[in-house]
Amino acid sequence: LVRREVTQLLTPGTLTQETLLRPEANYLAALATGDGYGLALLDVSTGEFRGAVFYGKSSVYDELFRYRPAEVLLAPELCRNEGFLEEFQRRFPVMLSAGRFEEEAGLQALRAQFGAVPGGLEHPALLRAAGAVLGYAQSTQGGALPQVQGFVRYDPSAFMQLSEATLRTLEVYDPSPVGESSEERTLMGVLGLTRTAPGRRLLRAWLRHPLVEEGPIQARLDAVEALVRDGVLREAVRKILYRIHDLERLAGRLAAGRANARDLSALARSLELLPELVGLLRGSSALLGTAERLPDLAEVAERIHTALVEEVPLKVTEGGLIRDGFDPELDALRQRAEAARAWLAGLEAAERERSGIPLKVGYNQVIGYYLEVTRPYYAQVPSDWRAIATLKDRQRYTRPDLREKEREILLAESEARKREYAAFLELRESVGQAAPLVREAAAVLAELDVYAALAEAAAQYGYVRPRFSAEGRLYIRAGRHPVVERGGGFIPNDLELSPGERLLILTGPNMAGKSTYLRQTALIALLAQIGSFVPAEEALLPLFDRVYTRIGASDDIAGGRSTFMVEMEELAQILQGATGRSLVLLDEIGRGTSTYDGLSLAWAAAEHLHDKVRSYTLFATHYFELTALPERLSGARNFHVAAREEAGGLVFYHQVLPGPASRSYGLEVAKLAGVPREVLGRAATLLAGLEAQVGDVGQEVLD
Amino acid sequence: LVRREVTQLLTPGTLTQETLLRPEANYLAALATGDGYGLALLDVSTGEFRGAVFYGKSSVYDELFRYRPAEVLLAPELCRNEGFLEEFQRRFPVMLSAGRFEEEAGLQALRAQFGAVPGGLEHPALLRAAGAVLGYAQSTQGGALPQVQGFVRYDPSAFMQLSEATLRTLEVYDPSPVGESSEERTLMGVLGLTRTAPGRRLLRAWLRHPLVEEGPIQARLDAVEALVRDGVLREAVRKILYRIHDLERLAGRLAAGRANARDLSALARSLELLPELVGLLRGSSALLGTAERLPDLAEVAERIHTALVEEVPLKVTEGGLIRDGFDPELDALRQRAEAARAWLAGLEAAERERSGIPLKVGYNQVIGYYLEVTRPYYAQVPSDWRAIATLKDRQRYTRPDLREKEREILLAESEARKREYAAFLELRESVGQAAPLVREAAAVLAELDVYAALAEAAAQYGYVRPRFSAEGRLYIRAGRHPVVERGGGFIPNDLELSPGERLLILTGPNMAGKSTYLRQTALIALLAQIGSFVPAEEALLPLFDRVYTRIGASDDIAGGRSTFMVEMEELAQILQGATGRSLVLLDEIGRGTSTYDGLSLAWAAAEHLHDKVRSYTLFATHYFELTALPERLSGARNFHVAAREEAGGLVFYHQVLPGPASRSYGLEVAKLAGVPREVLGRAATLLAGLEAQVGDVGQEVLD
Repeated sequence: LVRREVTQLLTPGTLTQETLLRPEANYLAALATGDGYGLALLDVSTGEFRGAVFYGKSSVYDELFRYRPAEVLLAPELCRNEGFLEEFQRRFPVMLSAGRFEEEAGLQALRAQFGAVPGGLEHPALLRAAGAVLGYAQSTQGGALPQVQGFVRYDPSAFMQLSEATLRTLEVYDPSPVGESSEERTLMGVLGLTRTAPGRRLLRAWLRHPLVEEGPIQARLDAVEALVRDGVLREAVRKILYRIHDLERLAGRLAAGRANARDLSALARSLELLPELVGLLRGSSALLGTAERLPDLAEVAERIHTALVEEVPLKVTEGGLIRDGFDPELDALRQRAEAARAWLAGLEAAERERSGIPLKVGYNQVIGYYLEVTRPYYAQVPSDWRAIATLKDRQRYTRPDLREKEREILLAESEARKREYAAFLELRESVGQAAPLVREAAAVLAELDVYAALAEAAAQYGYVRPRFSAEGRLYIRAGRHPVVERGGGFIPNDLELSPGERLLILTGPNMAGKSTYLRQTALIALLAQIGSFVPAEEALLPLFDRVYTRIGASDDIAGGRSTFMVEMEELAQILQGATGRSLVLLDEIGRGTSTYDGLSLAWAAAEHLHDKVRSYTLFATHYFELTALPERLSGARNFHVAAREEAGGLVFYHQVLPGPASRSYGLEVAKLAGVPREVLGRAATLLAGLEAQVGDVGQEVLD
Repeated sequence: LVRREVTQLLTPGTLTQETLLRPEANYLAALATGDGYGLALLDVSTGEFRGAVFYGKSSVYDELFRYRPAEVLLAPELCRNEGFLEEFQRRFPVMLSAGRFEEEAGLQALRAQFGAVPGGLEHPALLRAAGAVLGYAQSTQGGALPQVQGFVRYDPSAFMQLSEATLRTLEVYDPSPVGESSEERTLMGVLGLTRTAPGRRLLRAWLRHPLVEEGPIQARLDAVEALVRDGVLREAVRKILYRIHDLERLAGRLAAGRANARDLSALARSLELLPELVGLLRGSSALLGTAERLPDLAEVAERIHTALVEEVPLKVTEGGLIRDGFDPELDALRQRAEAARAWLAGLEAAERERSGIPLKVGYNQVIGYYLEVTRPYYAQVPSDWRAIATLKDRQRYTRPDLREKEREILLAESEARKREYAAFLELRESVGQAAPLVREAAAVLAELDVYAALAEAAAQYGYVRPRFSAEGRLYIRAGRHPVVERGGGFIPNDLELSPGERLLILTGPNMAGKSTYLRQTALIALLAQIGSFVPAEEALLPLFDRVYTRIGASDDIAGGRSTFMVEMEELAQILQGATGRSLVLLDEIGRGTSTYDGLSLAWAAAEHLHDKVRSYTLFATHYFELTALPERLSGARNFHVAAREEAGGLVFYHQVLPGPASRSYGLEVAKLAGVPREVLGRAATLLAGLEAQVGDVGQEVLD
């Protein structure tokens, strides 16, 4: 029986094997409670280790949805809570594993990793979560995690808040499950022009966490703009990036001592590209800083290059790794084996000559080297040969000197292999020292890749650099939906909002583009705050602290709750969470219930957002009664999307224009559809009666 | 070069190969115009050939949707009409082929098939369509179509009219594309307990075409009831049916002379089961008629049985088909070959004895039979042997008598194969005469299979026999949705309608089961009129001439038209087409446009259906204003679906109760969802104001 030691457990959240990993970041998460929620996240493949504290369950869910961990550890107090557990599993159908959340165990794991407990872990729930996540990763990896070099506590309020519903509605990562949308029809699909895996992961991270302070946003925009303006530079940079390997994960394997020869070889080839890249960036003042942050790793590349052959094998224990001339002892061993092999080759010719037998020198695993003679020559075999195998019509012989040479070759080869492996380990060890620098380089390159990708998108799709308004003005001229416009034939639209004109009531028929208009506004804000150019001819924006959307797709069912219940829960979240610096997008609030209570709720919500919250609100509705609001609320305006019936049927202009929509639109469609004249006449009479009353109703209700 | 004649073209609508066909009927359709639309349908695999004349484009589409042809021929006047062509291809994405629609060509195809033009083809558009479909099939099959034995013109008004939208909405064949429904979650999936392919096709056909006359429906119900009552009989019948092959398609291949030996064998095995089946059916007075319609085919089965071996091979030209003792000449040939083989077997033993050589008799394709001798015995070989092959250590010899025997065997075998093939052709020819009877038997068996399947469903699921009311009363006690109830936990509901109470206004929240209630009513009517038992405790029904549904699923997009446009088109069709004998189901008419014009249209439509059309109407709506209608319209009633908010959240009771729904439902959900108290208070005030006004508005508008 062979005793094998388990050195690594495979779990979805702690993978490091490149072949098993998705190109996205692969997080293991842990969640614990105690004066809020502590959430710790660890990507074992790159060593990224971070965490934050949240004070509401919904913000924890939103954060988890942004990070999408592959595996989650829940603290016992959460596991025992059946209601929580059920909700959690419904919303995050990922693997749940058991972690050790006792504070003592956590401290031990942290000390084992870092020597001391790192800063940022003062909050007890976060400490327990961080300890659990680290301890779990240590146990699956069979010990310490050299790639994990520190913990970062981040402040969720330093980023724009995006709810799970908003990310879904805006189709940032995933297409809507309804309809025939494909992966490319997402924001990530359109914007994801990165050339490296770390760049792609970083772009996904930025989209999860748009910034809220102007300084860092402007710095990013400067870098993007430099690459927009200089197409030749951008092309050159992207060409180089394309040839650089996933240094982030490579650094992780390097630090963990798991890198193989091909990893080192790929590292060297990647590092050798850096001087050229730095040279390119030095020419641009906006990118100079980036260039200067790239650590000099030429020596590491050189070291690998001189040690390893060009085409390294996958296995590191079977030789063929190390260049001739790198190690004298290895060279000597190789020479010895070579000389013995040459002697054998000479032997065949010499013995043929000497004995006149057309013999062959052969080798097999059982008997080693031998001389083979066919039946007609049996008589001529010299007496110092010894028969070791007899076949049907041939015999195999050996000689004492043959045995000796054989031993010599095998010995030299085995020694050479050992020597090579030792040399490789030494190399890996020494290169491993540079893992933190490689990780640093990877981070800078990822950033550069995102700048170049955003610049490429801006140039390809005709985006403009957004400006930010300290007075809170919003002005978008000819704004477009970045994803929908890719389909062609898109009609751009303007939008103006300000603290004084902050509630826009949008009416008009279905299919005319109301919800696209809402979505593009949110996407432009989001793009601007990650530091991207935006799809518009001009964009002046406030810095939003949150973006909320309540845009219903269809009568879908979310985990057994009625659509209307979901709608109301989302509305409640918005009314509670939005501020005067938030962007709120509401579509068809109050559908799914009867007319009057739906209308009352929509009306009260609009008033609340206008009067109390004072958020920037786009409110699309079928409740025509709401078009009376601008008369009553100083900051409200009516707009509508245009549609007209023409000879061939309905034409949607997808244009957003001031004023309320025409009320008789429905009747005109019904006429086109062939509803009998008699019914239409009656409907028109009823409509006239209702309209005559509505003003009074609105008036009286409001008074 | 081998010259091959194309004997059959493969096109989706003219397949006959069992392996290529779906189990469903496989129609080729042709459509021509001229005083209405002529539609001809041909199933080449069974020989079914039928057609009808329609006077509206939408009824043609509905019919095509019911038959779902695999391939369609359009007359040139339709192909040239770009608008028509585009609409057609959008709604029926099937293969379009070119047919010959000239009247002269059609007459020629019909005369070639039937000798004269069959009756029922007096209408010129139908004549052209029938001629085109037949001519096309003839050309793909390379000549006449013996399986096609006549043309049936049917009267579309003899069946309940079901629109394409209705079949889709009711999920009769296909699950809705939205949500996670699977194939089994269709009416066909629940009801399709048939045991034979023709039975399954017939059930699909019945579901396409429910009957409108009571006599034939009662006859079907009698047969079903007999099988419901006698479970032992049902089980026995279904066991036998399960063992019967697809005689309908087999009859088609038989008539076309394409049956192979396995087909004949399967036919015999199937026919041999019929006497037992007839014996079973004779015991039941309701099924006696069915038994008596089964033609006696015992003689055919016997003929096949005596001719063919038990396990016939697939190829009919390579022998091994025909039983020993069937044909004296064949027996003689087989005996000759056998005798020669026996001589050869004896030869080996005899010659070993005689020569003392351990020889073997062998055979290969190149040199035929030979005697094989190994090297040590070369010297002992008799002189009359002649060497014909030398191998390394053995030689092969022949003798004159060996050659002769060989020729004898080969000749006898080849003759036997020819004789077998001739006997098979003779058999196929003679059995082919019985093709019309086999088809007849297939039709009767299919009917029996459907009765048994409906009876099995009724027994398994607890259905009841429906009764029909001459006075037009509808009373369903504890009705259920046949598909939804399979999921368990279903709440049954009653329904009463009559000419005096014909408009039911149904209010209540989403998710509470309004549209299930509407759908189950339509399904019960449909089931009753195909002659099935229905999912209820008691069901008294009028005989409906049409069932209309306008039940929107979601904001889906149908071929670029807006949802609202589609909704209005369907409404227009209903208002134009429905009669006092129709069942009309409307859900949320007027959604997708602004409140007042949607409400006006819904209101006017409800009035029109009540006053003018006088149909049986279930009208589900969110427009609470419509609950005022019963006060004004003598035949209108209010009902609602119950939902209540309880501690754990909302509870839907799925119960339909008299009276309008509670108006404040929406506010109560909003409260549960966490909408701020302040907003709720304002909404309640607004609602009270609106409600106070609405009575007056309705009153004033109506006056």
